Amino acid sequence: MKVVLAGDIDAAEWTAWRAALAAAMPEARWLAVDEAQRAPDDVHAAVVANPPRGCLAPFRHLRLIQSLWAGVDRLLADPTLPAHVPIARMVDPALSAAMAETALWATLSLHRGFFAYQQQQREGLWRQHEQRRAGEVPVLVLGRGEMGRAVAEALQRQGYPVAGWGRDGAPLPPPLAAHEIVVNLLPLTDATRGLLDARFFAAMREGSALVNLGRGGHVVDDHLLAALDGGHLRHAVLDVFHTEPLPRTHRFWTHARVTMLPHAAALTDPRSAATVAAANLRALRDGRPLAHLVDRGRGY
Amino acid sequence: MKVVLAGDIDAAEWTAWRAALAAAMPEARWLAVDEAQRAPDDVHAAVVANPPRGCLAPFRHLRLIQSLWAGVDRLLADPTLPAHVPIARMVDPALSAAMAETALWATLSLHRGFFAYQQQQREGLWRQHEQRRAGEVPVLVLGRGEMGRAVAEALQRQGYPVAGWGRDGAPLPPPLAAHEIVVNLLPLTDATRGLLDARFFAAMREGSALVNLGRGGHVVDDHLLAALDGGHLRHAVLDVFHTEPLPRTHRFWTHARVTMLPHAAALTDPRSAATVAAANLRALRDGRPLAHLVDRGRGY
Repeated sequence: MKVVLAGDIDAAEWTAWRAALAAAMPEARWLAVDEAQRAPDDVHAAVVANPPRGCLAPFRHLRLIQSLWAGVDRLLADPTLPAHVPIARMVDPALSAAMAETALWATLSLHRGFFAYQQQQREGLWRQHEQRRAGEVPVLVLGRGEMGRAVAEALQRQGYPVAGWGRDGAPLPPPLAAHEIVVNLLPLTDATRGLLDARFFAAMREGSALVNLGRGGHVVDDHLLAALDGGHLRHAVLDVFHTEPLPRTHRFWTHARVTMLPHAAALTDPRSAATVAAANLRALRDGRPLAHLVDRGRGY
Repeated sequence: MKVVLAGDIDAAEWTAWRAALAAAMPEARWLAVDEAQRAPDDVHAAVVANPPRGCLAPFRHLRLIQSLWAGVDRLLADPTLPAHVPIARMVDPALSAAMAETALWATLSLHRGFFAYQQQQREGLWRQHEQRRAGEVPVLVLGRGEMGRAVAEALQRQGYPVAGWGRDGAPLPPPLAAHEIVVNLLPLTDATRGLLDARFFAAMREGSALVNLGRGGHVVDDHLLAALDGGHLRHAVLDVFHTEPLPRTHRFWTHARVTMLPHAAALTDPRSAATVAAANLRALRDGRPLAHLVDRGRGY
């Protein structure tokens, strides 16, 4: 099987990916786009990481597009994407575990006041805050997919009362004010874009916090800044942004109530992700059912 | 049973403690030192929180000194302490759980580079770092007591390879260089004072990190600063200090490789600790074995 590799990652990263994929499936031929274009009709699968627009068009015999990333919103936004080729998301337990670590770190930091203590260190201030138990800090996880479940399980193991919510009709999660921390892990679709807006924040509990590990497009930035400035929200931990890298002039960079990560909450690990991709390519070759297929109508 | 309450905590805190103790054991009489001194020979137990030197001397019929704090090094350093009265430490699952939260937060922060990302935010720098799995970050926990065990269990649940070590003869934990993070939860005794010194740091792995949740007296501050300045140690998370509050002129406050907490890693929770203290006082009253007794020779 010939597989074309296409994406906007740099050469060193592609070298690592190609090595991992070749180790996971040595019987396949892994080709860069320019190599694959010499005999495009021999190429039956693509492994992609946000590929440049139109780069898959020459490959008319594709039967699977396997994403290396869990989020496929940028991929699906490409109007040149072949319309009838199945697309598979990356679903990798190692990726979910990394996401759970980040969600747990953010939740512990908010619950136990560690962001506040780090601010106090910069101010030279020695002051203890009230200490509550994990069981007194209810957390709402938006998103019931693989990552949402992994995050919910990690938080529950650590004693937090956790509720989950998926965007399945109701305009807002009903018990929003019952929770002190909201962790977003929704996919970005037409139904979830801009969900985290002024109305959503107003429905959250006074003094609660947002952890956005989904997509920047879920958040209306000006509404979030207003909720933080007004004190209704105590803090936001943000991993994802409308534009990445986030422009230096954006207020999130310097806001005292914002903790930023550079889209690093869960990086795809070539070692495990290559194995997941290879398993799907073998299923394609052997005529077995494909895993983790995207519903283009639903958007994830 | 009449119980004297003695300690260096403020009036509001004592009010909360007295209420919690009275709720846990309504049949006892809980007396401040001045109240208890009116009939000192009727007082058979003391509940203490680092009591002022000499304040227990009038109570010649004491049969138990129950500490509200887990660490008794300051209590034992008081030369006026009645020599033959049993002393009990506070051993409270809620306290161990809080300690485990702090150790987990520190370990996640060091493993996943969250301290570095927060520094990058202050510098306006967008850069992702290599992401490793928890299973690739071995952690050594110094201390095999209740807290050490709770910390080790929480880290193991989250996937970290954890080794434990107690100060039982060997001068240094043998596999020190095998670990990337060292979490100190030892009691402060003559045998452990100054254990974390230049020799210890030199035996730690290049680029590893220290999390001190034990006592300030475990650390030789100048040696730690040298290890951080020289880059042999990557970071230190410090909750405890030789003098508390830490003087504003101390270099820890402003060191880029130091994250400080104001002795807040695990605050004793009156709700659960009062129940633990009451159980021991009832055991005393009923002639049953006392729990969590301090070995004065050992120092904890």
